[in-house]
Amino acid sequence: MESLRVELGDRTYPIHIGAGIIGERALYNADGAVAIITNAVVAPFYLARVRQALPGATEIIVEDGEQAKGWKTLDRVFEALLAAKLGRDGVIVALGGGVVGDLAGFAAATYQRGVGFIQVPTTLLAQVDSSVGGKTAINHPRGKNMIGAFHQPLAVISDVATLDTLPDRELRAGLAEVIKHGVALDAPFVDWLEAHIEKLLARDRAALVYAVRRSCELKAAIVAQDERETGVRAHLNFGHTFGHAIETATGFGPWLHGEAVAAGMVMASELSVRTGLLGAADARRVRSLIARAGLPVQGPSLAREQWHELMALDKKAAGGKVRFVLLEGIGRATLKSGVQGDLVDEAIAAAAQ
Amino acid sequence: MESLRVELGDRTYPIHIGAGIIGERALYNADGAVAIITNAVVAPFYLARVRQALPGATEIIVEDGEQAKGWKTLDRVFEALLAAKLGRDGVIVALGGGVVGDLAGFAAATYQRGVGFIQVPTTLLAQVDSSVGGKTAINHPRGKNMIGAFHQPLAVISDVATLDTLPDRELRAGLAEVIKHGVALDAPFVDWLEAHIEKLLARDRAALVYAVRRSCELKAAIVAQDERETGVRAHLNFGHTFGHAIETATGFGPWLHGEAVAAGMVMASELSVRTGLLGAADARRVRSLIARAGLPVQGPSLAREQWHELMALDKKAAGGKVRFVLLEGIGRATLKSGVQGDLVDEAIAAAAQ
Repeated sequence: MESLRVELGDRTYPIHIGAGIIGERALYNADGAVAIITNAVVAPFYLARVRQALPGATEIIVEDGEQAKGWKTLDRVFEALLAAKLGRDGVIVALGGGVVGDLAGFAAATYQRGVGFIQVPTTLLAQVDSSVGGKTAINHPRGKNMIGAFHQPLAVISDVATLDTLPDRELRAGLAEVIKHGVALDAPFVDWLEAHIEKLLARDRAALVYAVRRSCELKAAIVAQDERETGVRAHLNFGHTFGHAIETATGFGPWLHGEAVAAGMVMASELSVRTGLLGAADARRVRSLIARAGLPVQGPSLAREQWHELMALDKKAAGGKVRFVLLEGIGRATLKSGVQGDLVDEAIAAAAQ
Repeated sequence: MESLRVELGDRTYPIHIGAGIIGERALYNADGAVAIITNAVVAPFYLARVRQALPGATEIIVEDGEQAKGWKTLDRVFEALLAAKLGRDGVIVALGGGVVGDLAGFAAATYQRGVGFIQVPTTLLAQVDSSVGGKTAINHPRGKNMIGAFHQPLAVISDVATLDTLPDRELRAGLAEVIKHGVALDAPFVDWLEAHIEKLLARDRAALVYAVRRSCELKAAIVAQDERETGVRAHLNFGHTFGHAIETATGFGPWLHGEAVAAGMVMASELSVRTGLLGAADARRVRSLIARAGLPVQGPSLAREQWHELMALDKKAAGGKVRFVLLEGIGRATLKSGVQGDLVDEAIAAAAQ
């Protein structure tokens, strides 16, 4: 097992990464009462082992899928927490993927104005992305993650053995965020990924532990600089302005988040070329790695107006202007506003070619 | 106009207190887009003047009363904010009493994971209580303020001229929290209140400005020590364990919050006498001041079990045990757990005599 620390002053917390660690009681630093939130797909595989580590915990099982990230499910969670009389010294454990983590994390952020939170991510996406940074949220019909809070966990327990039960498509979607960390932040990690993408797709545990650890390290370094996403943390949103537009347009579901981000990264790379920041060869390299991971390199067919309208809802928008995360090179993201609309159209079209 | 600062590091903010200041543009430190949230009762009196200070702001008018502090109204607020495309650099202005402040504050805490927030409290209760401390919340059928967040405002603008339109009953309910600040924290302020209670009831502006300022100072000093209510801040909950039980039992409405807290303070004083902490003469002094303010000194008739069950839901409960804020003297609150149930019963009964 490897452990790293996300340095956030008095909110500093550890991330434990290993194979077969989900039932290790010592990793759960919860003193008070505990509620475990998980879903109907994850529970049969892993709830029994977490229950052994946390006997007597309240268990709340929500429905599978993105639709759980809404008012209705959240209200059921609050109802269950209140029925169990969980106090302000209670701790909520999220056992599952990004949906469970975001929902349970937002519940922890707002239940009685905030209780403790431990994440046990069981998807690659959640292990490399939502486990670092304290972002929690639910969706609104008008946009993904529109309602949320920053709420740092007490600990994250990432067990790559839980990825054994992850469908191939979700594994690939998780790799999209791994690739994003390299492409936006760290060129040597892109080299490593180009050399190990097949091992990762074959679920080689040592490769997975390294990919999770390196992703978390890269993200943790950014988050430590900018916890509330007022500056450099926006770089982690590489591919997400386009990606969120894809997810919103298609109704949260047909496209997995990582798939939308994958296509979004190709578009953002193409836009970087068109704004003169990036060489065409580097954009091809990004596209090639994404394609080798079995991820989409082009988005759905949407009208020009729809793209622009959806992107205007992006949380990075400032004063009504969309800001894009672009590349100045492999591993070097930068935030740009005032990008011309027709260059955006060209980039979207280029991704489809 | 007087201004004081609530010292909270990089979340430090000013409170401006005066008569006729609500329309002063310079007091609104909002640079970006603005949304004003107010209600149907307050809007006809004061919205036009705030609009003058903030031209072009989105206006969101919610229903009057405690029922606005729920999912349904909150969701309508989010819908309006998203329809107006308020970005992360936007600011939400709460114009109204505690309900509008709590609702708008929670919306500001969670909309796009947090936007700026300016409070313009138009009730005495909101001016002396919710304007300091950053508590925001909505209610759950199982308990008041069960869902919420700590979210500090950018500024508070307390205009005592807006109290001219406040019903007498609500003025008195606000005085309950003023009295609480004295009784729990500052004996000289209790002396002052005993000498000025009639002036306050007659809405003497100079007396109101002093009472609001001193209340805010006392509360700000506590909040600066304990922003997240892990320790001494609980002292501000004097009277609230009983008070929240009264409000929950009666369904949030028949009793105003301040009225429930008033009766709760008498019960907490009686409990302090019964646990040997407080002299009977001091308890009589608390009761007398509350009665002179025209506030209730006894609660509704509830079964013993119902009192205990409702108090067990209190947010100060730790490990399933209710903790009471009691008095060791006028102006000296203290937190006690392990109080015997029959003493609690006796205190409730004594308040009714």
